[in-house]
Amino acid sequence: MHALQFTSRSSSNGMTERDFVVGGVPGVLWSPPSAADRAPLVLMGHGGGTHKKSPAMAGRARLLVTGCGFHVAVIDAPGHGDRPRSEHDEREIAELYRARAAGEPEGPVVVRYNDHLARLAVPEWRATLDALQELPEIGADGPVGYFGINMGTAIGVPLVAAEPRITAAVFGQHWPDVLAEKAKEINVPVEFDMQWDDEHIPREAALALFDAFASKEKTLHANSGRHKELPRFEADSAARFLARHLSRPAAGS
Amino acid sequence: MHALQFTSRSSSNGMTERDFVVGGVPGVLWSPPSAADRAPLVLMGHGGGTHKKSPAMAGRARLLVTGCGFHVAVIDAPGHGDRPRSEHDEREIAELYRARAAGEPEGPVVVRYNDHLARLAVPEWRATLDALQELPEIGADGPVGYFGINMGTAIGVPLVAAEPRITAAVFGQHWPDVLAEKAKEINVPVEFDMQWDDEHIPREAALALFDAFASKEKTLHANSGRHKELPRFEADSAARFLARHLSRPAAGS
Repeated sequence: MHALQFTSRSSSNGMTERDFVVGGVPGVLWSPPSAADRAPLVLMGHGGGTHKKSPAMAGRARLLVTGCGFHVAVIDAPGHGDRPRSEHDEREIAELYRARAAGEPEGPVVVRYNDHLARLAVPEWRATLDALQELPEIGADGPVGYFGINMGTAIGVPLVAAEPRITAAVFGQHWPDVLAEKAKEINVPVEFDMQWDDEHIPREAALALFDAFASKEKTLHANSGRHKELPRFEADSAARFLARHLSRPAAGS
Repeated sequence: MHALQFTSRSSSNGMTERDFVVGGVPGVLWSPPSAADRAPLVLMGHGGGTHKKSPAMAGRARLLVTGCGFHVAVIDAPGHGDRPRSEHDEREIAELYRARAAGEPEGPVVVRYNDHLARLAVPEWRATLDALQELPEIGADGPVGYFGINMGTAIGVPLVAAEPRITAAVFGQHWPDVLAEKAKEINVPVEFDMQWDDEHIPREAALALFDAFASKEKTLHANSGRHKELPRFEADSAARFLARHLSRPAAGS
């Protein structure tokens, strides 16, 4: 097992930020300033082309840390943030730009490339979770949630399907082609975001992915607007959803 | 114009309840205990077979009054609550029970009967709103919202389409057959609830009604579960939605 090594620490406005590395993968752990008592952990997946400390990640972390008292961890996906791009990354990114410039649908490239990244990222996430649970302020039996949209869903769906420690998840904005089969293995409560007028993901495709989750408790939030117009208030909703499910007393505690 | 006459008044747990009559139609107005300052008004429509003070209405009113500081008014729909049933009501209700007992879809009866009731109820609601706006604690230029699911949507969609004073609405759980044409006339922000596994309203029918709203800002909340299993947390969400849209300062104030 890889140990977690903290590489830096800072604090601002009621949130402590610690950079870490696990098995060569760089991550960030945001926490309440006084982490004496154990608190639930939310793993967050960033979107394609962004990184662990993008404004969306930092903003959602703030909601979960200062609003809910949770820990929040994000790692850079392969080829993203502080990690080098492979030849394969470069090729797929070039193909994505080419498809965009040619006015072709980008779905096929995104689905294929994200599937490749997910195969690499799921074991990295599981090793990271092992290491995070060694920290006394998180612990091995505390509640764990997941929150990731776009590429964060492409990685998160197979992760949550494989990982029984994750007991609630927020996903959204992806295609069912690869993910629907994994979604059928997921039974934990799910909140799922889609954009009703998404110019990349057909409406029926988004609905099919939501439909695939085996979860007894699942909620779809569909908002008018295009792919990039997911309303800010859905982050508040995700935080409330995670608070509702992770703040319950753990069994046996 | 019909004046509003209060017929009783009581208070409990931070909410004042006043029964009223406007033009022979009985209603209830729930308000914050100190109604010296003007506050937004939410009109709520009750479901079929229930009435203005059903537990769902009183519970939602409490969220809006004590949580948001709003006034909330509900009137009995024709043939409901304290109002007499007509021969037509009796005939349609008998037909609904017959269809249910025969295992036939109840949609056609509900759609037809609710359309009939909406034609009666819309002018009653508009007269009630006229009268409520004469009250100094509500006023003629304050924000007005609407919140009604099931039959409350069958009446609310044509009401909001006809009524420019209503600037935000929560609807849900109805068929598009009659309502989609009216929904196309609605431009105000809408939150719309459906049940993903509704045994009465086909999934495609619910999605078609949501799709019909012309509103630039609209949100669909689809939850797993059957018709009667709409989660309680959607009432909290509706209150937040109405607070977000009605608490904005009115133009010119």
